[in-house]
Order: sequence, then structure tokens, then C-alpha cells
Amino acid sequence: MQGLMQDVPLNLPTLVRHAERLHPRKTVTTKTADGVKTATFVEVIDRSRRLATALRELGVNDDERVATLCWNHQEHLEAYIAVPCMGAVLHTLNLRLFPDDIAYIVQHADDKVVIVDRSLWPLWEKVAPKVTSVRQVIVVGDVPGPKIPGTHDYEELIARVEPMDYALDLPERQAAAMCYTSGTTGHPKGVVYSHRSNVLHSLALSLVDCFALAETDVAILIVPMFHANAWGLPYACLMTGADIVYPGRFMVPDVLAGLIAERRVTCAGGVPTILQAMLASLMKVKAQLGALDRLLCGGSALPEALQQAYRKELGIHVLHAWGMTETSPLGTLCRPTSALRNAGDEDVSRLRASQGRPLFGIEIRIVGDSGLELPWDGRSVGELQARGNWVASSYYNDDSSPEKFKDGWLCTGDVATIDAHGYMRIADRTKDLVKSGGEWISSIAIEGLIMAHPDVAEAAVIAVAHPKWDERPLACVVAKPEAKGRLTKGQIIEHLRPHIAKWWLPDDVVFVDQIPKTSVGKFDKKVLRGQFKDHVLPTE
Amino acid sequence: MQGLMQDVPLNLPTLVRHAERLHPRKTVTTKTADGVKTATFVEVIDRSRRLATALRELGVNDDERVATLCWNHQEHLEAYIAVPCMGAVLHTLNLRLFPDDIAYIVQHADDKVVIVDRSLWPLWEKVAPKVTSVRQVIVVGDVPGPKIPGTHDYEELIARVEPMDYALDLPERQAAAMCYTSGTTGHPKGVVYSHRSNVLHSLALSLVDCFALAETDVAILIVPMFHANAWGLPYACLMTGADIVYPGRFMVPDVLAGLIAERRVTCAGGVPTILQAMLASLMKVKAQLGALDRLLCGGSALPEALQQAYRKELGIHVLHAWGMTETSPLGTLCRPTSALRNAGDEDVSRLRASQGRPLFGIEIRIVGDSGLELPWDGRSVGELQARGNWVASSYYNDDSSPEKFKDGWLCTGDVATIDAHGYMRIADRTKDLVKSGGEWISSIAIEGLIMAHPDVAEAAVIAVAHPKWDERPLACVVAKPEAKGRLTKGQIIEHLRPHIAKWWLPDDVVFVDQIPKTSVGKFDKKVLRGQFKDHVLPTE
Repeated sequence: MQGLMQDVPLNLPTLVRHAERLHPRKTVTTKTADGVKTATFVEVIDRSRRLATALRELGVNDDERVATLCWNHQEHLEAYIAVPCMGAVLHTLNLRLFPDDIAYIVQHADDKVVIVDRSLWPLWEKVAPKVTSVRQVIVVGDVPGPKIPGTHDYEELIARVEPMDYALDLPERQAAAMCYTSGTTGHPKGVVYSHRSNVLHSLALSLVDCFALAETDVAILIVPMFHANAWGLPYACLMTGADIVYPGRFMVPDVLAGLIAERRVTCAGGVPTILQAMLASLMKVKAQLGALDRLLCGGSALPEALQQAYRKELGIHVLHAWGMTETSPLGTLCRPTSALRNAGDEDVSRLRASQGRPLFGIEIRIVGDSGLELPWDGRSVGELQARGNWVASSYYNDDSSPEKFKDGWLCTGDVATIDAHGYMRIADRTKDLVKSGGEWISSIAIEGLIMAHPDVAEAAVIAVAHPKWDERPLACVVAKPEAKGRLTKGQIIEHLRPHIAKWWLPDDVVFVDQIPKTSVGKFDKKVLRGQFKDHVLPTE
Repeated sequence: MQGLMQDVPLNLPTLVRHAERLHPRKTVTTKTADGVKTATFVEVIDRSRRLATALRELGVNDDERVATLCWNHQEHLEAYIAVPCMGAVLHTLNLRLFPDDIAYIVQHADDKVVIVDRSLWPLWEKVAPKVTSVRQVIVVGDVPGPKIPGTHDYEELIARVEPMDYALDLPERQAAAMCYTSGTTGHPKGVVYSHRSNVLHSLALSLVDCFALAETDVAILIVPMFHANAWGLPYACLMTGADIVYPGRFMVPDVLAGLIAERRVTCAGGVPTILQAMLASLMKVKAQLGALDRLLCGGSALPEALQQAYRKELGIHVLHAWGMTETSPLGTLCRPTSALRNAGDEDVSRLRASQGRPLFGIEIRIVGDSGLELPWDGRSVGELQARGNWVASSYYNDDSSPEKFKDGWLCTGDVATIDAHGYMRIADRTKDLVKSGGEWISSIAIEGLIMAHPDVAEAAVIAVAHPKWDERPLACVVAKPEAKGRLTKGQIIEHLRPHIAKWWLPDDVVFVDQIPKTSVGKFDKKVLRGQFKDHVLPTE
């Protein structure tokens, strides 16, 4: 027997229509060279409707890919709305990749039109000769300059067309957007989000025990819009009516902190390296942060010391989350449950360092080497797998990674524990684990402890080959400027000794000028492993 | 191009699985004759799995209807879980209907098994001889007593079976539950909720700007579980992990207030007549209401005086909502938006008396006599229509009301305005409007004003035939006990005069002992119109 309810597709045109009718006067603010510019939702959506018409006139048909190579700004949001709502597929390009990688991705996705910021034109010029799929280029004038021959000017293009009516009956399983993973092995791989996955992710993200988005919020979107849907925040803000603040191309800690203070921002999100970089700037404007209520942190493990610094210095709890491009991205988020109401500060603090509990709509499990599911006991360590409506089922035109998709579950490549309350703790990336004499050592746990040392700026732990134990940990440490030359290997080891088992202690500590980062700001251990592949441990 | 995301059905087994794994120790508390009984979610869900096995053994096949004739308690929640999750259809029977009506509904829905509270056995005994579809009866021992011959004892039944594994892949459009509307014309009509509609309703209901349900909440479920899914609260509480408190059969204001105080309840909901009845009881335990945070009010218009009394006496804002059995039920909810941050108290108070803005997932519009959509200007009055995933598309085996479903919209039978911010205000039920000389008069607006008079307990306004104007308003007023015999018609009219247009003033005021109520506590104007159909107005 079927239900007798209406069947309205879960699609972005319906979400955008809701934003337009219910939140018409909410605002999108973008940092510019000489201040900010602000537009209302109704203006932004009207401009998106014109962009959609213009794209259609440029020959963009249903299903065709429209790429963006843009910073976080209003026009990028207009593309986020226009492209999926007209029935085409938005493809956000990572501007921090090498031109060769961008070219591979554009070609693989078969992008027909690219929307490029004028400030990124020099980058696009290096990509363009290597791609054949792109028919037209639209340039957003984020910096002043003459019209670039052979391109369309964004403002000219949308000025001369009528707004498009979006089809409210767009099928919910249709592709809405693509995002390629940075790809630690092999070529980058394309994740294809659907309208359904984006709408359900927006709902789950906005729940009270998740990011608790409300119409009274002002959210600053620091996470790049080419990075996993900007964590789903653009659509969730449109849905709930939260004001949006964009930093544009000004990804500078003092500028971000200034925007947060001036725009009375209530919520923000970023990877740990951004939060680390922003802390000092925020402290300078501490008196003006009265509205700031919560920070979301994901992308890699949040060092406990950073969590504590935010709490101590600014009175703000950072909400630790886990996700990946393949999970739209939000999979888990950490908030203490009512059971912890009477727990001690230390217990709660340790818990806040975990990646938290799965959102409604996401199932997680950990699986041992035997392939069996492991218990939620906080001790058993296994590969983290995820399932849900906003979890990838395969990559676009790429079946080179069948090991990622098993029995309807995504195999995340993370190794984790889950406790009886459902709190998940990432122990490591599978490939970053140090396997010593058949036992594993968590590189992330050791890094977190080293970074709590007052003289340490950053630290990464990698596995180095060892004749007896197969692998042993090597700590790569960046000392703070004032401690450079003074901080010693012995101090790092003694700092660790009370906290971890003796056999987890790194066999060596090397001081480096910086930890290499990936295009999205995570530690790039692949590069680090290359640098130290011939490192001879003193214990050999 | 299709998205490449996993496709996990939006169904109740997945929601229940989430509750079981993420909120195992959250509780369900039920008032009993000598105190309360409490069970954890994991215990309740395990018992539901046993009930499902028992029902299967009794021969309940997929799609078959299992009815409940029960108060609000733990076992009723177990049926709410078991029946849809096993693939059958839950049918909640309204225990306030006449036996003939219940019999019609049971027979129309073709219920195969009925779960009955022992305290309601006398009612079922009157229904049973009139129905032929029911094969088995299960009795819940909510009051002590011997086993009833020819029935199954609920506890015995579930004690001897193993728990059922619910199918997590149950198709989302499958029927989950049925609820019959009280039916103001013709026979009651069956609304059939789907798994998809229940899950999406739970998500939307739990958003911050809606009922803001969180794991830290304690919700008392006063709304009868036979009344439109108990407003969707049982499933939303399971999803978010909010503790549940049930009053059992003790629907007495002092008992409800005592439970709210003792269980540290944070949120509750009820129809205006219940909130009216509870106010004095809540004031007696005012000092213990520290946790109480929000009250949801729907079912009929919330008189502004009652809203103000709650704010003034208890410091609690009542959230006014609109919905109907056909909308699962939540359609709109009233919270002030950020635009009203600097508005005056009076503006906000007037706004809080409106039914609020549509939830994400619900579209509303008003349509004039011409069939055209009317503007959102706060003045244009038209029939309210609704569309969305949790809005009925038809009635079960009943096509006697084609006028209710037009072009994919539900025609609600309510007449409303919508303002530029999306705030909807019910002017009246179509059939309750007073049509005077071709212009309409809102009976609800006049009632609200009369009930703000300090000597008035209740008031209802109905249309009475008039030779010149077709119809004119008649006010039926219940004076407070202490004002009986003292309150005059002239006082009522003078009280109204400053607030409404002269031609809206009732032509007559009659004092009655009580306003007749429907089975769900709404004013029954059909009965009232019958009583006064021959009333001669002094203005004739």
C-alpha cells in the first residue's frame, strides 16, 4: 500500500523558491578591495535567474557541466544557484591545484563553460591551452581591468537577459554539482552530488544538535566554495535564511576577523590551519565578538590545544566535525549529550576532541581486517565506513577504486574508534598509520600532543622504514619563531613521555621550516614521506 | 545526468535505528495511577520489535492495517514504531468519537487487528459488534483487571517472541500510518502518511526556527496520539533524542502541570483549550518550571489574551502554528524574524497571534474566488492552499471531495491573508465566515477579542440568517463563574467597539453555559449553528 501524500521533489529550485519568498531581504555581503558590497537574497536569486538564461543562450544544455574558478563571493553563489536550478551541473574547480591538475579535471568532467574571476585569469591562462572541452569563458570582474578578448563579461551577460523560471519539478536524483577529491593516489576523482543529497544535507546540517542554523544567524563562509560544497553552508543558509558573509579573495586572518566583528557574524567554519591562523587576529577584536556563537572545524583533526585556546581566550567552543568530499561533506559533529551534563571538565574536553556523532541520515561503522563490524566500545580500531543519502556511491567515469565502495558502504580510508555513545574518533588515515611490529601507532594522536607544547607551531608524524619493526614514527616539528634553535629533540620526547606508551614514542625528531600542505590546507604527508624516505633512524 | 550518491530510503526503520544506536539511554516516561514508569529508548524499541514479531505471528501481512484505541503512553509509542517498521500500516482511532463513527472508520480502513487499552474496553465493546474486519484484539493493561476472553494480553504476547529486524530498505513511499479527519461534512476521511512524509516532517519540525528539538530536550506529549500523528512529535523525539513524557489517561490540568514540573519538561504542545485549562495549574508550580522553554499551540486560533497571559504569568512565548490532519500536521509556525528585532512590543505581539510562516518543505498560497493567486500583502483574503511532501494528495478510498485537491494543491478550507514576510493569518474556516451583504466578517477575529474580556471564559461567533444582509454575526459567550448574571450584552459590544469596524459588531450576544467541542477539543460551530438556526436577531 502506497502513502497518499504529495510527491514534491527534494530539489534546489524548491529550496531557492523558499529562500526567495520567505527570506527576501536577508543579505549576502562580499568583501571588496575598498569595503564590502551587499545584496539581498531576492537580488542574488534574480541575478542567478539571469545567469541561467545567459548560460542557456550560450548553449548550455541539461546535464552539461559549468565550471567555476572563483573565490568565495556573491557571483559564485549566483552560479551555485543558477547552474543546478537550470538543470545543468555545477563543477567547482580548486584554484590551489597545479594547472595540469585543473586541466585534467576540466577535461575529465567535460566542462563546457567556465566562470573565472579576473584575478584568477593568470591561472586560467595556464590551464586553457591544455583543455579542449570548454566552449566559452565568462569573466567575473572581481578586480578592475579591461575586457579580455574572446571571453564574456559576467555583468554584461546577465544585464541583457530576462530571469529564468526554475522548474520546481526537477527530478530529485538529478546531478546538481561535481567536486573532485584532491586525490592522494592516482588522478583526482569526481564526486557527483544530486539535488536530493544537497537538500537532505542542508536539513541535517541545520538541526539544533548539528550546526543549528537559524534565520537570525550571520554565517561567514571561509571554507572555499570549491571545497566539498563549501561544507553545504551556501544552500543551508539560503534554506534557513541566515545572512551570508564572503571574504572574497581576502583570505587574510586580520581581514576575516575584521569581517566577523563588523558584520556581527554568529557562526563560521574552517580547517584547523585557518582557525590556528585566525586566533591571534580574533583576539585583537575580542571586544566586538559578542555575536560570535560557534565555530565548526573539520577537514583534519582539531588539536586539543587549539580547542582549549579558543575556549580560554574567546570563550568559544569549537565544534569538531568529520567529513569528506564524498560525504557532502558532513558525516559527524561533536557536541556533548545530556548524559555528560554532570561530567568533569576533563572528560568533556577529551570528548570535544573527538569527531563526534553521526548526523541523522548518516550511518557509520568500523570494520576490522577480517571484514567484520567491530563493537562501539571506544577501543576497537577499524576502518571507518559510512552510508547515507549524501554519501557517494561511485566516482564519475572512474572505476579505478572499487575498494572504496563495498556492499553499499563508502570505505573512507580513515581508521577510527566509536564509543558506546556513538562518539567517533579518527585514529589516522589508513595510509598514515605507523605499523610497528604488527601493531599500529596513531600519527594523529602523537601530533596533537606535540602541538600542545608551547614552543611548537606545527608537527606531523610519519612512518619511516625500520629493519626490525617494519616502520617507526618520525616526528617533523616546526618550532615557533622565538623557540627556533632552542627547542630540542629531547624536550619533545620528554613532553610526550607521560602521555603515551613507550613504544609509541617517535624514534627521531627533526626540525623543519614548515609542514607541506595540500591544496585545501591539510598536512601533505605524501610530500613529507618523500622528503624523509631515506631518513636513517638512530634506532636502526 | 544522475547524481552518484547513495540512495537510502527515507523510512522509519532507519529513523528508529538511529534512535537505538545514538540515543539508547534516552527515556520514555508514562504517568500511571501510582506514579510514573520509565523505559529507555533501547528498551522501548526492543519491545516494539517483539510486538512486530507477535503481530506477524497473528497473521498481519504487509500493508494490513493495525488500529490503536489507546491513550498517550509507552505501549502506544511501541505500536507507532512496530507497525510501520514491520511494513504494515498504523491506524490511530480517535477515542472521543461516537462508537458508530469509530466503527465506520475501522470498517472503512479494513483494520485487521486492534490494540485497545483495558480502560477503553467499555468503548470498544460498543464498537466491536458493528465491525467485521477485525480478526484479533490485543489489550494493553493500563488498568488492572482479569484477562478479557477472546483477546490477547499485550505483555504476554510480546514476552514469548523474539525481536524483529526491521528492513532498512523499506521503500520510502510506502504507507506508514492512517488518520481519519473528524469530518465536518459527510463521513470521516482517511489520510495516509508515508514513511517519506513522516521522516521529512520530523526533520522540518526539528529545525531551529520551527520546534527546535534537541537531544537535551524533554518533551511532554499532550496532543492525543490519535490526533494527526501526535503532531509528529513521537518520531521527531526519537530522531533527535529528546526524552518523552506521556500523561497516560490522566489528561487533568494539575497532573499535566505536575509532570511538567517534576520531569523538568522543556517543551510541550496543545490546542488552545488545553493551554487555557493548564494555565492556572502551571501557575501553582511556577517555581519549578525553570526548564520549560516553549509551548506549541495549534488546532485552532490561539486567542491573543491567552498568548499574553502565558507571557505575563510564566514568561513563556507560545509558538502559534497551523496545520491539519492532511498536513501531517505542521504547515506554518510563528516566530519573529530578525527583521522584527527592533519592532515594538505591540507589533510583535500582533504578529505572534498570526499562524506564522511556512516550514521549509511546505508551500502555501491564497487563492481568490476567481481562482487566481492573491498577493502577499497582508490584506488580500483568499482560500489557503498548501503543497509539500507531507501534504495529502487524496483520501483513502474516497473520492467524494474532489474540491479538496486541485492542480497538485490541497485546498484547506481555511480563509487567510499572507503578509510580505510570509506570515499567514487564518481569517476563518470557509464555512464559518459570516457573509454580510457580500462582504466577509472573520468570526475568529471577533472571538479572540471577546475572549480578551476579563469576565469571559469562552466565546464563539457564528453566522445567523438575516433578511437584508444574508448573514450577520451572533456571539455566543460563556461568562466566567464569578461574572455569571452580571456580564451584559452591552458590555461585550462596548468592549469590541474600539477594535473593529462598526459593521463587524455582532447583531446579538447570547450567554450560554458552554461552547460545544469536537472530539479534538475545537469549537464545534456546526452544533452551535444548529442550536441557533432559528435565532431571531434584534436587527431584523
